[in-house]
Amino acid sequence: MSILIKNCNLISMDVSREKIEYNVDILIENNRIKKIDKNIDKQCVDKVIDATDKYVLPGFINTHSHIGMSIFRETVDGFILQDWLEKKIWPIEDNLTEEDIYNSSLLSCAEMIKTGTTTVNDHYFFPESVINAVHTAGMRAEITRVLMDIGGDLEPRIIELENLIKNYLNKYDTISINVGIHGFYTASNICVEKARELAKKYNLNVHIHFCENSDEVKQIKDRYDVDVPSKVLQKYFYDINTILAHCVKLSDNDFNILKNLPIHVSHCPISNLKLGCGIANLPKLIENNINVSLGTDGQGSGCNLDMFDTMKFVGLLQKGINEDPTLISAYDVLQMATINGARALNKDSLIGSIVEGKLADLIILDLSNITLQPINDVFSDIVYNAKGTNVITTIVNGKILMENRKLLTIDENSIIKNCKYILKNLK
Amino acid sequence: MSILIKNCNLISMDVSREKIEYNVDILIENNRIKKIDKNIDKQCVDKVIDATDKYVLPGFINTHSHIGMSIFRETVDGFILQDWLEKKIWPIEDNLTEEDIYNSSLLSCAEMIKTGTTTVNDHYFFPESVINAVHTAGMRAEITRVLMDIGGDLEPRIIELENLIKNYLNKYDTISINVGIHGFYTASNICVEKARELAKKYNLNVHIHFCENSDEVKQIKDRYDVDVPSKVLQKYFYDINTILAHCVKLSDNDFNILKNLPIHVSHCPISNLKLGCGIANLPKLIENNINVSLGTDGQGSGCNLDMFDTMKFVGLLQKGINEDPTLISAYDVLQMATINGARALNKDSLIGSIVEGKLADLIILDLSNITLQPINDVFSDIVYNAKGTNVITTIVNGKILMENRKLLTIDENSIIKNCKYILKNLK
Repeated sequence: MSILIKNCNLISMDVSREKIEYNVDILIENNRIKKIDKNIDKQCVDKVIDATDKYVLPGFINTHSHIGMSIFRETVDGFILQDWLEKKIWPIEDNLTEEDIYNSSLLSCAEMIKTGTTTVNDHYFFPESVINAVHTAGMRAEITRVLMDIGGDLEPRIIELENLIKNYLNKYDTISINVGIHGFYTASNICVEKARELAKKYNLNVHIHFCENSDEVKQIKDRYDVDVPSKVLQKYFYDINTILAHCVKLSDNDFNILKNLPIHVSHCPISNLKLGCGIANLPKLIENNINVSLGTDGQGSGCNLDMFDTMKFVGLLQKGINEDPTLISAYDVLQMATINGARALNKDSLIGSIVEGKLADLIILDLSNITLQPINDVFSDIVYNAKGTNVITTIVNGKILMENRKLLTIDENSIIKNCKYILKNLK
Repeated sequence: MSILIKNCNLISMDVSREKIEYNVDILIENNRIKKIDKNIDKQCVDKVIDATDKYVLPGFINTHSHIGMSIFRETVDGFILQDWLEKKIWPIEDNLTEEDIYNSSLLSCAEMIKTGTTTVNDHYFFPESVINAVHTAGMRAEITRVLMDIGGDLEPRIIELENLIKNYLNKYDTISINVGIHGFYTASNICVEKARELAKKYNLNVHIHFCENSDEVKQIKDRYDVDVPSKVLQKYFYDINTILAHCVKLSDNDFNILKNLPIHVSHCPISNLKLGCGIANLPKLIENNINVSLGTDGQGSGCNLDMFDTMKFVGLLQKGINEDPTLISAYDVLQMATINGARALNKDSLIGSIVEGKLADLIILDLSNITLQPINDVFSDIVYNAKGTNVITTIVNGKILMENRKLLTIDENSIIKNCKYILKNLK
């Protein structure tokens, strides 16, 4: 299968190319970007997409989410985290079936494809249901079975995760597995050691909540008898590519340790605000050369999975709280949402930018609507003003998942109906 | 002309009604809401709108904007305020014609109608051009000719404002005039006294930038020899309904003075972040019973005029910076965007909620798209997840300005073309 995108304005996010190139063609062959050039011959191409006056970007990479939780959208307003989990979420989660998680995950995939996300780094339970949903949708994903010591025995969870790894490590070229840990405050050293073993044995990433709020920091210090939480990371994951979700509450000592570890921060500003956690110190992360990618968190705590919403908060928050409007440009934010996400997942040779040879994960934006006009700075217009609805076409692994706003792999109406039905039966 | 909205879910924002009422009809006669009831007879009605499964809200009231500035959208990223004004804005503004401002304002009106704003409180120059645009669009607005002492003589500006008042005070029932002052840091006591005289003589609101950033606070203190800026307000406007845009940098002494003055805050969180000003202390304003309404600011500093974007920031910011997720509910934010805005403009007996007898300014939302589903809490879903594109119909003063996303008073394509042409000729 070959696809030719004709005459687009390309924002490749690749250091080897200009920030924006006008009127270029992109040839996709099978799952790869074969060629980027002016006037590529459209003969012998299976499908031609006219992208005149449209903008093409790499698809967004959401490095922290819980896509099985879409049915919990907007249940958190006015709750503190622990009450929300105990009163709203856990009693319901206990009653969810694998099919419920499949449907809830598929709704999330629909939401992501419609808002331009092509890769998601997930963090939840029922991994086979999540994988089935992601595979049905055609998205790229890293999936896990989150490990923790509370709410049940550890051993069967470890077995479940290792079976998952064995079964899916090479099954789909769009789906990979990592080692998820809920957090150091909910995992014993035994749990963490087992997680380390699996990550080393299969050469996998680790994905963990880290320093989301002050209470968690205190709990980690108590449980592990350390002066700063990063020492636990340093002990167990000094040589493992690790994605840290949140990192809101880092001390100077944490920064000093983290800057020498193979870690990446998944910054989730909307969730951090909504749950009253605080705001991560992005300038200091950047100053310490720590890679910052972006996450939406789940729809319960994070509102939605729309990376445009998240991007809008990233730069604005830092300019505001630091009272410095020159901090973090719109282009910096676009990097966090694309190539930095690829780097976090250790996949930056494959995805995250549009360059010949990389996998074909890209989105086409139509920025012609009046609420974005006139365009003085296209990067600012995308980061601060564009919405998920400006994405008209989403391509993952060379396959078109949405064309002219129509999903091609998911029946929207039936999935909404299914999710409403789950809620009705749970309430 | 009569319009019957059938079978909607009504979020009236009126204290006399339930927060949400399902399957009700709304009868509009001429420019008023005549009746709200179940099963209103549709015979003898000029137009029936089927709003089954749709949500009806009062239109949003944007209490601080500069709608003539749409052509400056996204020119500010990376600039500090003074550099942006001196290097980007002022050199261009000097070359703008009345027709340019008309077109730029009309683009803003299109943006507002498409995103659910029905009333705007504007703050700019070339008031007749702005009025012509607003009148063409059919929106409700309060317009002014901003007064200040810098960049030209005061006297002709005062005359211009008084002529404006005389000419337009009773000309259109959708357009009123107020007394705009740029800020105490750019206005002498003579300017402020003249402004006071006009406001008293014609019984008008005052609209002024106030304590937007630390530098402004310092300048007011120096210029007026006061220990806190609020003392200037107290001296000149103790008996005049005054809308204060921003109020980011208020001291405890300011709060103590402000709580006893007839002032209203127009909170503009996005602009305040983007320009690196900081974040207004909403909990303290609310605790002091100060009315908080919402503003977008202009598209140069505030990104866009979409009140959904602004609403999303309001509550989330306060929960985050105060580390308290129970602060400011989604419903509180909706109040700020509607009835509190009406109160700020001293028009809460006329607009801001949907109740029999009030003027018919309302919007119809379609929340059925998958990125809002499932709906567990409709107020959170509107504030945190809905976008301007969820507004399908906008009605002002009993007149339909947009129906099923199509603008009825503005030709979108020609206005975009006109604004691009202005920019091309200015550069």
